[in-house]
Amino acid sequence: MKIIRRDQIERILPSLDLMPEIEQAFQAYSKGRAVVPPVGELLLDRGEVHIKYGYLKQQQHYVIKIASGFYEDQAMKQMSSNGMMLLFSQKSGQAVCALLDEGLLTNVRTAVAGAIAAKYLAPERVDKIGMVGAGTQARLQLSYLKPVTSCRKVMVWGTSREELESYRLDMEQEGFDIKSTMDIRELQQQCRLIVTTTPSKTPLLLSDYLQKGTHITAVGSDTPDKQELDPKILGKADLVVADSMEQCLLRGEIHQAIKAGLLEKHQMIELGHVISGQTLGRESMDQITVADLTGVAVQDLAIAEAVYKASQA
Amino acid sequence: MKIIRRDQIERILPSLDLMPEIEQAFQAYSKGRAVVPPVGELLLDRGEVHIKYGYLKQQQHYVIKIASGFYEDQAMKQMSSNGMMLLFSQKSGQAVCALLDEGLLTNVRTAVAGAIAAKYLAPERVDKIGMVGAGTQARLQLSYLKPVTSCRKVMVWGTSREELESYRLDMEQEGFDIKSTMDIRELQQQCRLIVTTTPSKTPLLLSDYLQKGTHITAVGSDTPDKQELDPKILGKADLVVADSMEQCLLRGEIHQAIKAGLLEKHQMIELGHVISGQTLGRESMDQITVADLTGVAVQDLAIAEAVYKASQA
Repeated sequence: MKIIRRDQIERILPSLDLMPEIEQAFQAYSKGRAVVPPVGELLLDRGEVHIKYGYLKQQQHYVIKIASGFYEDQAMKQMSSNGMMLLFSQKSGQAVCALLDEGLLTNVRTAVAGAIAAKYLAPERVDKIGMVGAGTQARLQLSYLKPVTSCRKVMVWGTSREELESYRLDMEQEGFDIKSTMDIRELQQQCRLIVTTTPSKTPLLLSDYLQKGTHITAVGSDTPDKQELDPKILGKADLVVADSMEQCLLRGEIHQAIKAGLLEKHQMIELGHVISGQTLGRESMDQITVADLTGVAVQDLAIAEAVYKASQA
Repeated sequence: MKIIRRDQIERILPSLDLMPEIEQAFQAYSKGRAVVPPVGELLLDRGEVHIKYGYLKQQQHYVIKIASGFYEDQAMKQMSSNGMMLLFSQKSGQAVCALLDEGLLTNVRTAVAGAIAAKYLAPERVDKIGMVGAGTQARLQLSYLKPVTSCRKVMVWGTSREELESYRLDMEQEGFDIKSTMDIRELQQQCRLIVTTTPSKTPLLLSDYLQKGTHITAVGSDTPDKQELDPKILGKADLVVADSMEQCLLRGEIHQAIKAGLLEKHQMIELGHVISGQTLGRESMDQITVADLTGVAVQDLAIAEAVYKASQA
């Protein structure tokens, strides 16, 4: 078994073109070419662990991905992610590669999925990007949005001035023009491409402030109880896109909206079908679209394969 | 993260006294001190993968165990096991140790559980041990039975003369007196301690040949469809013991017997309660007892911890 440590992964990542790989993964998934059992979940006093696993039929490997989020401090404010990705042979079950990414690849494939959602669903003209949350994922989302929009103006929302300031300094170095706010209304009014990245369990984006022509990518909620969007937003949306229909019925924003009776299964479409052009994405500037990304094992498989392959070169 | 490879594990294993460790694990589990989510399962063309995971509350680590069985040949006859065990910190989610056991520790903890079941449930006097199956697990079960019975006479049942002969040669070297049979009736008539170790999906042990005073430990079936015992055997038994009540309702022999309407939940007890003495085990020489061992994550945790600890010494 090959072992690839985090520092090696960090060196390999900039050379990879992950968007086409992960687009293909979503397409294969929506075409029924993947086997992805329900997510395994382990809850502990100070954290939670997700086990995502699966494979594409007739390919070489299956993946088992372990990703955790643990509160670092007693006050339960600072969360750190951890984990690893494992590739095994579909023929023998032999372990082929352990990617000791400590959660990095999960963060990156989530950001890439955000970029894919924006590519297909955001309005053509975005004057300001709205980022909800100012942590690691909020940084990565912005970085990976670069190739899909020329917009560099950003409004970031958070609850800690310190965090917002640190986010501003970091992202300005990456060429963005960052304005902070602690007022979600301001963000919703000014931004037509909004990405939510927090572990919130109560809605942050409110239906009352929802503007025509907005696209929202929700990546924070990946459990049955996390929620960043007022479920009425999904009810109002012209288009609700799930990364995995099956998974979004059990976790994430769609799960919440269905539970609230504001959305029905037939109103949703799957991201892979939008990518392949089997169903239409955004049809006009005025439409409201929501992409609910709960994270699917095929994304883990795609990124793990890409890093493994590059490490062989 | 510490990495322990299979050759190191093989060197460490003989020095470990695993029975008390795994007895404690079963007791803690039955006392409700463990968190063990449902088993994750991945089915492939030529094999299956089980992911078992969990932890004991207020302890140091949680375990994620990956174990697979794959057919090595196109004819789907020879199966090989593989996998690894991973220990993580309960406080931070950090990976502490990867035990690259290739399935060995799963095989061993299963054999130890078999010995524990025999210790508490087999009749005091056993003149001959009946082993159903002649593969790796059938070898390990016998080895680990040594400390709990003085009986060294064994009848082994199998479907391949070659396999039976190879089993005889191997186990005679370990001091057993081995007789082979391809007639399950002969085995059931002569043996009062029977261990079943095959991946069969149709009953091998038959209710018609069941003798008074027999104890059966069934370790082969760990899925909803595998089955080695005629479910009537569980119906007739005076005592049916589950390693995990929750798990045995979904997989293994108990699951089959309940599905067939021959057993009810209240007729079963849990192994951890027998070990702790909270419920009685065998009460007379004449009783028929069945232990259904589907394999519980707390066993994986116990053996992984023991090997990890020994590796630090």
